[in-house]
Amino acid sequence: MNQSFDIAVVGATGTVGEILVQILEERDFPVANLHLLASSESAGSSVPFRGKNVRVREVDEFDFSKAKLVFFAAGPAVTLSFAAKARAAGCSVIDLSGALPADQAPQIVPESNGHLLAGLAQPFQISSPSPSATALAVVLAPLRQLLDLQRVTVTACLAVSAQGREAVSELARQTTSLLNMHPLETRFFDRQMAFNLLAQVGKPDEQGHVPLEKRLVTELREVLGMPGLKVSVTCIQAPVFFGDSYSVSLQLAAPVDLQAVNAALEAGEGIEWVEADDYPTAVGDAVGQDVVYVGRVRHGVDDSSELNLWLASDNVRKGAALNAVQLAELLIKDPL
Amino acid sequence: MNQSFDIAVVGATGTVGEILVQILEERDFPVANLHLLASSESAGSSVPFRGKNVRVREVDEFDFSKAKLVFFAAGPAVTLSFAAKARAAGCSVIDLSGALPADQAPQIVPESNGHLLAGLAQPFQISSPSPSATALAVVLAPLRQLLDLQRVTVTACLAVSAQGREAVSELARQTTSLLNMHPLETRFFDRQMAFNLLAQVGKPDEQGHVPLEKRLVTELREVLGMPGLKVSVTCIQAPVFFGDSYSVSLQLAAPVDLQAVNAALEAGEGIEWVEADDYPTAVGDAVGQDVVYVGRVRHGVDDSSELNLWLASDNVRKGAALNAVQLAELLIKDPL
Repeated sequence: MNQSFDIAVVGATGTVGEILVQILEERDFPVANLHLLASSESAGSSVPFRGKNVRVREVDEFDFSKAKLVFFAAGPAVTLSFAAKARAAGCSVIDLSGALPADQAPQIVPESNGHLLAGLAQPFQISSPSPSATALAVVLAPLRQLLDLQRVTVTACLAVSAQGREAVSELARQTTSLLNMHPLETRFFDRQMAFNLLAQVGKPDEQGHVPLEKRLVTELREVLGMPGLKVSVTCIQAPVFFGDSYSVSLQLAAPVDLQAVNAALEAGEGIEWVEADDYPTAVGDAVGQDVVYVGRVRHGVDDSSELNLWLASDNVRKGAALNAVQLAELLIKDPL
Repeated sequence: MNQSFDIAVVGATGTVGEILVQILEERDFPVANLHLLASSESAGSSVPFRGKNVRVREVDEFDFSKAKLVFFAAGPAVTLSFAAKARAAGCSVIDLSGALPADQAPQIVPESNGHLLAGLAQPFQISSPSPSATALAVVLAPLRQLLDLQRVTVTACLAVSAQGREAVSELARQTTSLLNMHPLETRFFDRQMAFNLLAQVGKPDEQGHVPLEKRLVTELREVLGMPGLKVSVTCIQAPVFFGDSYSVSLQLAAPVDLQAVNAALEAGEGIEWVEADDYPTAVGDAVGQDVVYVGRVRHGVDDSSELNLWLASDNVRKGAALNAVQLAELLIKDPL
């Protein structure tokens, strides 16, 4: 693989974009020229890459014919504004925003449905799913053969970093303020986030579901290749800076052997299995790591057709930036 | 009701015991003499009641014939050591520790199965269930008629105060230390609790279940009077000082009408129903309150036989001390 590629990263100054650039360097991705792009407010700053500071430029002034592959790591509106332009210029696109329709940009997690890449036409257009769908798909993929899976019920306890840097500062500021007995003043969050859990992440529709929850249901079914899977989901906001945790309960059509489940998880790609006398946490284990941690593997209290799991995952790395780079690594096995 | 009663509180210096004494005063419970009891380490301190400081005495030196009703608000070992002695002396017993077998001390939540009190023999011996079973029972009780309930899946996000005062100080100390960039030193918890979620509360058995989880399954079935109900449960420790939150997913045998559910919850005893454009939180709503808050009432994303709820409850008040006092209020309607 001596070929190298001109790469563009849209949203290079965001939490995911910055880590994505870092991961391209860490994994020695064959980058020829790296074009870092952002909105006009963030353009002009610079991001380190291979010992140099790369200047961030305005995305709406970029000539996409200069890149072969573009990562969209900004919000859905940015993807919708520029992805078509990028493809028209011949670029392959990897979108992390969830903005593109499934029939135009399949959701792919290499450990679960990476084989789908082989059937796609160039220039490629693929989606890296939400952090929650990615983490769940990595862990459920090796169990699909073993379990007759009927329903996944998940409470996703999400870190504030998924909401960007303002949310991170707000949690720190609120916490400091409360510990110093100052009255609470809310800015980014609309109520106390420190030492509290918020039941809702985002704005609900008329049925009471927030976009993240609907996205998780759709993406998980697609990535697992199980369109009929029942998925019950609640996304909550935890007072955690980095790292998502998932309380997962699976219902199976028949009793399952725990030893076989543990063996499949231990052998699973992209998974760190934690044995029953310990358990992983977001902060203590998952943050900064490329794998999804899984522990507390157990039956129901008196139901062996129920399987319970606890997952911890770095929402910015495996949940987003790393999965996107892994997709790119698979794409460049064929010439772009 | 001009009669008043001699009351003893075992565990009077603990988080639950102290609030229990406060609630006896708040609700003007007809107390003649109040005997506050604790282990030898805590004896000698005093607890305020009706404008006086009541001295806490050693439980093992107490003559139980001086009381008509005893609250056991300490650990299971203390109940097991003294409950039989109290009953032998003619006392009615309300246990909050979960130590007594179900056939000797039924688990009762007034809003759900308070009618069972009428069938009990004197002196009474009853159990106030765990905070989690109590909160869930209060909210599910008015839905029993409406729903053909098959399964309850719950992730209980528990406050550190349930583990006592040391746990509360430890969360504050860890948080301060981390915000000041000091290295983390763990004492009460075995790992970082600040800005993190712990997947397990207590020591698991060989099947991986912790006592709290097993207790919740058993108690919820008993209190709802639904012995065949499937209950999937995960108890996690949240970095929250006071107030428990519950992510609850119900599976029903048939689609349910949300309006009817909302109406039943709004009318339910001991419940504060929060409408869909808002949601309750433990810290912002439940703490210090006598009701269990319920919000985010919604179907599954594409399944109207699924009902999702978010609960917030004061783990020390309605979850423990208040429920016990409410039981006592019902008991004294008949002479003790």
